[in-house]
Amino acid sequence: MQLFPLKTPLLVREDNLLEVILTALGNAELSLQEGDVLTIATKIVSLTRGLLIDRTTVKVSAQAKKYAKITGLPADFMEVALQESDEVLGACKGALLTKRDGHLMPNAGADQSNAPKGYIIILPENPSQIAREIQKSLEAQFNCKIGVIIGDSRVQPLRRGTSGIALGVAGFVPVIDDRGRKDLYGREMKMTRRAIADNLMSAAEILSGEVDEKVPLVLIRNAPITLTDEDLTETMSISPQECMYFSTFLSDR
Amino acid sequence: MQLFPLKTPLLVREDNLLEVILTALGNAELSLQEGDVLTIATKIVSLTRGLLIDRTTVKVSAQAKKYAKITGLPADFMEVALQESDEVLGACKGALLTKRDGHLMPNAGADQSNAPKGYIIILPENPSQIAREIQKSLEAQFNCKIGVIIGDSRVQPLRRGTSGIALGVAGFVPVIDDRGRKDLYGREMKMTRRAIADNLMSAAEILSGEVDEKVPLVLIRNAPITLTDEDLTETMSISPQECMYFSTFLSDR
Repeated sequence: MQLFPLKTPLLVREDNLLEVILTALGNAELSLQEGDVLTIATKIVSLTRGLLIDRTTVKVSAQAKKYAKITGLPADFMEVALQESDEVLGACKGALLTKRDGHLMPNAGADQSNAPKGYIIILPENPSQIAREIQKSLEAQFNCKIGVIIGDSRVQPLRRGTSGIALGVAGFVPVIDDRGRKDLYGREMKMTRRAIADNLMSAAEILSGEVDEKVPLVLIRNAPITLTDEDLTETMSISPQECMYFSTFLSDR
Repeated sequence: MQLFPLKTPLLVREDNLLEVILTALGNAELSLQEGDVLTIATKIVSLTRGLLIDRTTVKVSAQAKKYAKITGLPADFMEVALQESDEVLGACKGALLTKRDGHLMPNAGADQSNAPKGYIIILPENPSQIAREIQKSLEAQFNCKIGVIIGDSRVQPLRRGTSGIALGVAGFVPVIDDRGRKDLYGREMKMTRRAIADNLMSAAEILSGEVDEKVPLVLIRNAPITLTDEDLTETMSISPQECMYFSTFLSDR
């Protein structure tokens, strides 16, 4: 398996994301091949779609003020995070813990870093549909079948530092189901599935960085993926009842 | 960045792990180069050290019986998990949620899969020290500086499928600290750190599988790591008070 970091310039709304990808591939003297996976940082999807909230237009609610006190984050930023959330699970110093589109994330994915001054970046709606559009365009361009991930970073329980999360996927099976297979001693696996899309995004994060690297695209070649055109986005998420952490923490409530 | 899966035969206590690694590299016609990272599945560390509990010798406590009912797992397995835990955080269907050596994990890392019949595999003590011994031996053998990860898999909150976790590391900086760096617009980063060792282990998990693949070793070349001989294992973990999930869930308790 090989990973190629693809540099881009600083992107703005006027940029066309597909052209940005094609230029980045061209600059790296790479073309796409059958079974390649392209990872795309959500931030450049948001930037090229102009998903920026002008902070002067944000009307701060009492709830946002309450969360600003707990998190230590600006109240207008908390207001945007609240508006972007499907559900608020709670707050702690540094973050509002939210759900959005079935994904757990701090501040509903709203972000102050790498946003132009005076703006807050928000996540795109339906990242898998955007991934699908990019997949189809690139497949037509390079005449091969590929996978696309639109991903972000997240923190892990009791771990320091971020890893990758696939918010949108297209073109391949994002979770490998090993249930029913036999282990080395012939014992049947009952639980094991692998978060292949999240792991690919984590691998990409090693190269893409989070600050000023300008590597929002990573091409992954020879990953053992299964190509499909089925939309399997929902298979990446589980309910709180199925989740080891949630079902443990919420059991006495 | 390139990843090479390294196959091994089915391993037993009589096998010498260093020889196993050298044979696997030789079979793949690979030698180690400056800055390479070798990931090693904890399971082969445990197997070659004979860290196997004979199930007939396990005395099941009342507490283990209680957790067996909640989890649906065998009571003798729960007993071993309890003995291997530093702290039990709770239980849900399918797993006992525990802490061990600062790492959060199901069943304290005790495992029935890929264990010989009648045995439960347990984790080695001090995986970073084992990683260091392997690092030093391989560095002497290949005359270069490398990184070594001894890792396992884990589940993520509200996500389906496993990703990688580095339990032991040696030879490189496992968490990249981006705090103080400036973003694309000159704004200083206050929070961002990247779990590079966990991300490398997640990347390796894409190739190594969890069932009968016999790929417990992955060589990662050209990863942007910083070599060091300092033991930075503890920097990978945070306290429940610093953790977004724990500090949120535990705030009303």
